[in-house]
Amino acid sequence: MKKALLLLLTLFLVQLSHAEDGYRLWLRYNHIDNNKLLLSYRKTITAIHVAGQSPTMDAVKKELELGLNGLLDTKIAVTSRPGGNTIIAGTREALTTSKLLPQGAQVPADGFLITTNVANGNTIITANTATDILYGAFHLLRLIQTHQSIENLHIISSPRVKLRLLNHWDNLNRYVERGYAGISIWNWHTLPDYIDDRYTDYARANASVGINGTVLNNVNANATVLTAPYLQKVAALANVLRPYGIKVYLSARFSAPIEIGHLKTADPLNDSVRQWWQAKAKEIYQLIPDFGGFLVKANSEGQPGPQSYGRSHADGANMMADALSPFGGIVIWRAFVYDPQANDRFKQAYAEFTPLDGKFRKNVLVQVKNGPIDFQPREPFSPLFGAMPRTPLMMEFQLTQEYLGQGTHLVYEAPLFKEVLNADTYAKGPNSTVAKVIDGSLYDHSLSGIAGVSNIGNERNWTGHLFGQANWYAFGRLAWDYTLSSEQIATEWIQQTFSNDPTVVVSIKQIMLASREAVVNYMTPLGLHHIMGNGHHYGPAPWSNNAPRPDWDPVYYHKADAKGIGFDRTASGTNALQQYQTAVQQLYADSNTCSDQYLLWFHHVSWQHKMHSGRTLWNELCHKYQEGVDTVGAMQHKWEQLKNNIDPERFHQVQMLLAIQHKDAIWWRNVCLLYFQTFSQMPFPANYEKPDHTLEYYQQQRFPYAPGN
Amino acid sequence: MKKALLLLLTLFLVQLSHAEDGYRLWLRYNHIDNNKLLLSYRKTITAIHVAGQSPTMDAVKKELELGLNGLLDTKIAVTSRPGGNTIIAGTREALTTSKLLPQGAQVPADGFLITTNVANGNTIITANTATDILYGAFHLLRLIQTHQSIENLHIISSPRVKLRLLNHWDNLNRYVERGYAGISIWNWHTLPDYIDDRYTDYARANASVGINGTVLNNVNANATVLTAPYLQKVAALANVLRPYGIKVYLSARFSAPIEIGHLKTADPLNDSVRQWWQAKAKEIYQLIPDFGGFLVKANSEGQPGPQSYGRSHADGANMMADALSPFGGIVIWRAFVYDPQANDRFKQAYAEFTPLDGKFRKNVLVQVKNGPIDFQPREPFSPLFGAMPRTPLMMEFQLTQEYLGQGTHLVYEAPLFKEVLNADTYAKGPNSTVAKVIDGSLYDHSLSGIAGVSNIGNERNWTGHLFGQANWYAFGRLAWDYTLSSEQIATEWIQQTFSNDPTVVVSIKQIMLASREAVVNYMTPLGLHHIMGNGHHYGPAPWSNNAPRPDWDPVYYHKADAKGIGFDRTASGTNALQQYQTAVQQLYADSNTCSDQYLLWFHHVSWQHKMHSGRTLWNELCHKYQEGVDTVGAMQHKWEQLKNNIDPERFHQVQMLLAIQHKDAIWWRNVCLLYFQTFSQMPFPANYEKPDHTLEYYQQQRFPYAPGN
Repeated sequence: MKKALLLLLTLFLVQLSHAEDGYRLWLRYNHIDNNKLLLSYRKTITAIHVAGQSPTMDAVKKELELGLNGLLDTKIAVTSRPGGNTIIAGTREALTTSKLLPQGAQVPADGFLITTNVANGNTIITANTATDILYGAFHLLRLIQTHQSIENLHIISSPRVKLRLLNHWDNLNRYVERGYAGISIWNWHTLPDYIDDRYTDYARANASVGINGTVLNNVNANATVLTAPYLQKVAALANVLRPYGIKVYLSARFSAPIEIGHLKTADPLNDSVRQWWQAKAKEIYQLIPDFGGFLVKANSEGQPGPQSYGRSHADGANMMADALSPFGGIVIWRAFVYDPQANDRFKQAYAEFTPLDGKFRKNVLVQVKNGPIDFQPREPFSPLFGAMPRTPLMMEFQLTQEYLGQGTHLVYEAPLFKEVLNADTYAKGPNSTVAKVIDGSLYDHSLSGIAGVSNIGNERNWTGHLFGQANWYAFGRLAWDYTLSSEQIATEWIQQTFSNDPTVVVSIKQIMLASREAVVNYMTPLGLHHIMGNGHHYGPAPWSNNAPRPDWDPVYYHKADAKGIGFDRTASGTNALQQYQTAVQQLYADSNTCSDQYLLWFHHVSWQHKMHSGRTLWNELCHKYQEGVDTVGAMQHKWEQLKNNIDPERFHQVQMLLAIQHKDAIWWRNVCLLYFQTFSQMPFPANYEKPDHTLEYYQQQRFPYAPGN
Repeated sequence: MKKALLLLLTLFLVQLSHAEDGYRLWLRYNHIDNNKLLLSYRKTITAIHVAGQSPTMDAVKKELELGLNGLLDTKIAVTSRPGGNTIIAGTREALTTSKLLPQGAQVPADGFLITTNVANGNTIITANTATDILYGAFHLLRLIQTHQSIENLHIISSPRVKLRLLNHWDNLNRYVERGYAGISIWNWHTLPDYIDDRYTDYARANASVGINGTVLNNVNANATVLTAPYLQKVAALANVLRPYGIKVYLSARFSAPIEIGHLKTADPLNDSVRQWWQAKAKEIYQLIPDFGGFLVKANSEGQPGPQSYGRSHADGANMMADALSPFGGIVIWRAFVYDPQANDRFKQAYAEFTPLDGKFRKNVLVQVKNGPIDFQPREPFSPLFGAMPRTPLMMEFQLTQEYLGQGTHLVYEAPLFKEVLNADTYAKGPNSTVAKVIDGSLYDHSLSGIAGVSNIGNERNWTGHLFGQANWYAFGRLAWDYTLSSEQIATEWIQQTFSNDPTVVVSIKQIMLASREAVVNYMTPLGLHHIMGNGHHYGPAPWSNNAPRPDWDPVYYHKADAKGIGFDRTASGTNALQQYQTAVQQLYADSNTCSDQYLLWFHHVSWQHKMHSGRTLWNELCHKYQEGVDTVGAMQHKWEQLKNNIDPERFHQVQMLLAIQHKDAIWWRNVCLLYFQTFSQMPFPANYEKPDHTLEYYQQQRFPYAPGN
């Protein structure tokens, strides 16, 4: 006993030198620190039985062992002959054969069933596929990590959306566009021969929240990724991700037939071009039999596309779809297009894409950003949702915080995601939510998808800001089931990432849930949008008016003048509003009834405009900016109180970042109010903090190496 | 007892989920796994007493606690009243006052004394400065980590070289020139407000091997680092590094007065320019009172410099030196210059710099790369060593493996460093080694320095290849004491990084010690040099002949033709040899007596030339390339046998990298032999492996995203 104690003391001290570095994400599997609960779990789980062998079933076994051994602090036996109190994982087929499936068990078509066999205390994780069992295994581990009861379980869980993808905007030189967490985790140079441990841990993390696909390279694509040496590298990654149910996709450069195929054209109706893509698809599928397909950004921001040949987006997408179709691949065609000549960037995607509805092949999805402009802190939903009934539309969210404080602000994005998904398009009458467009139910599409632009890089903690992990987590959870609440997801994430200590959970949850409205307020309250620095998009620069394109300039969006501020998108303006259903139009059309949140999205209103609060627009603007700053101050305060409840490494990291966020919030407030004041000519209301620098001071600041650009 | 056991079991299992990720470098401080030894250490060390308080003495205390608690598996008390068996750390002054210094203790002027007070079993670590005590503390911890006896210690250790610096070739956008380990650890964007834990761990690692300075930014410098906002960031880093005895230096762009000072010239004799640098120095020292100084790359590879104004390197260096001198700063002026018009790049640095000997200010060092060309697998020592008696010359080694397999080859560089340091310049007769030039002893210089171009990046294990850590370690150890043997340094590094298991130590040491000659043989045997791919320097490309400058082309260096191969640098050629002392010339002048290692550095010899082995040159070339490949094969074999002695993560990583190295060695062999065969027209000797591709196949390969360029 003494010897054992000594040995353990030894091993304990070893682990002291391991700081909490964030690498383990939400899959930390630390021991259950509630002794009663620990003993109860140990009673319920005495062994693991995994039926059948395959790379995915091996992953199930490995994860259950890693998780349970860690959580239950004891070596759980793996048995081939399950008695009672055993975790049993196997397909419906396998468990039926071995008579381990309880009678009458309802296994869903997609997703998993976790059910307790009360007769013998076994916990059954079953599904039609091994991947769905893996999701069930992660679900069970999550229940334990979050201290839920696992007695008498009967859980049926099915994904609402079929394709749940990350989009990596990662270049082949490892630079990540809009990346704030180091460089790409894909080390193309050392692939295919060197397989970084991160690749497996990436797969585990994604599978744990149900993400089942990843686009490895930037939508601003480089054709080199489609050459033979790079496809070998892609195949090596596919081999690592496959056991975890994750398919690889590639962003395909439309002009690849010219650049690497040495053809003279990339015209989608040209026979040589079509044959080139067909041959390329065949080459890919020989290496990667379950290759997912292509993501394409075409005729957007300088990218090549079918319009260069007088063809439509549908011509381009269908050509690629035809090449992939024999192998089961799909094309995801992005709708993020806008023309510098147009009078309102808001309207472009709708104008170009709605006429093409019904013209796409069956294996094409059109991927639409959540809002009409570009991942702002708050946007109304894109009018394309509900406007293309014959085309499956895929949602594109941005996890990386290009416009949300980048690598240094704590902004929990689930409320943003849910706001969009819950928005009602009225496309088929009330309750035609965006979510129902995306999951395919509104128009009965069997293909459905949702994408998150990744915030992952090679920094030790994956996302740079520790709380970026929560956005990756929340994206996956909502892609699987968008009815989960932001609060519920935050709770689970905190419990797994930090602790089940109620003080920690409650305080961090308050911080997280306040954070999205905070960033809206200190950056772009009342419907302001796109007023940040050009290019790098770092910090405020509402005065900017010399970008290569007017629709990249803040002044294009806020249109502040002596009379007022905001973009008139009503009938008296660009009438972008008309792209929505009448019921939606009615919500926004009148500046007196339009909610404050969207006011300046749709109206140019006078500085004196009376807001719902009773304040003038100018005073409300001052109020909102200050509110944003104050919220960050409150977040800081809450965090400080957790000093003794959180490990020192992570406590200090987040503490420093919150201080930066607070400084930045003040910067945004000062800059925007000083600048807009040059138009409003109105005084700052009393009792608010006053800017401590002049507008000129702020205008002279330069950020030549702001990351991600 | 049972409860304690349970608790410890708990904590033990937590640590299971921590994989060996290499982050802790050689400072792992895992428990002593030899029980007898453990008990003996515990007997010798029962408490820690640190005399005096300062940031550095606090670092001493923290490190002793972290290290001893880990190694001895028990909480070592920190006491203010040391009894016996206590580690006592304090300056000579403090310990004299408190009467803790044993009578007659010889404290060295620089460096530390560790001595056992036999009367009470106390172990005293003392020195004149807190930083030297820190070095002593690390030394003691190293003794324990490597299972040395700590009874009756009497160790006096003084550094042989004063300035022991890392040079980071890190750009402000975090791209690292010739970096193969991710991007820069300096996150300029989040500085000064966010202090990454890595900064402290970087400081600890450096201090542990005596490195006392770091140049934060690339010698291809950007003047922005000298602007006020960036100096704030530099100051924040200086604050983190200072307690660990590490001064910060900056690479200064010579044209900064134009670029950020808005002057019209950077002429070093111009008054405004001189004043600008004086003011800049003052500004820097106000923020960083112990700022080290400037490193300057001038008039080299397109960098600006004094020659643009008709001034000399001395004029430029002295102008900066005058600006820094009031504050105690120094200028490190690089001698890496070469002119595309010249007939032999080898000769340029000597030609430009020897006439300036004696013309530099007292606070200037001239930093010379170890060889005359550029960090090749093997070079003769630079003829500048010993040729500038009135100027302190600083050594520049390259830790990052630009020409040594970059991020994927295991090459232990200590033998390379020592080969140069031990080389005899004969400048003042026999035994005028390069080391004696560098340490200042040959010409009695009080300033002395040695620099290593860093191989550090933001990858989890710091150096990308785990064995890159050994080069960082070896550099520091040799900078402190170049008389240490490569084997001795390898042994300690292995013991600290992997284990004290003799099987592990012996096998890895064999691998490491064989690795440098292996890379010479499979890349550039017999004195070949600079025959790798242009730009990225990745892989072989001996045919390359179209670089923007001829002296960047492999054909410039190997000069292969029908008659033979090699660069004639004797009197019948460029006579570069004349730059050496006569005794050195005699070593190399005759192709029949010149050692094989340097033959093609100095001679163009016929393919039939008879080598010392009796083989023809052509056959010897084939033999050497094959030997290089075979050595890597043997390294792989040795590693495989350690499968059960090393944690699976690191075992597998190195296994994959060795496989890449073997493939690459074969690639080098095949390419070089196929190419040189087009000149020699001689057959491959029997019994060697034959190339499996044609020369054309190899020539068509492209590596557009090879890193570090």
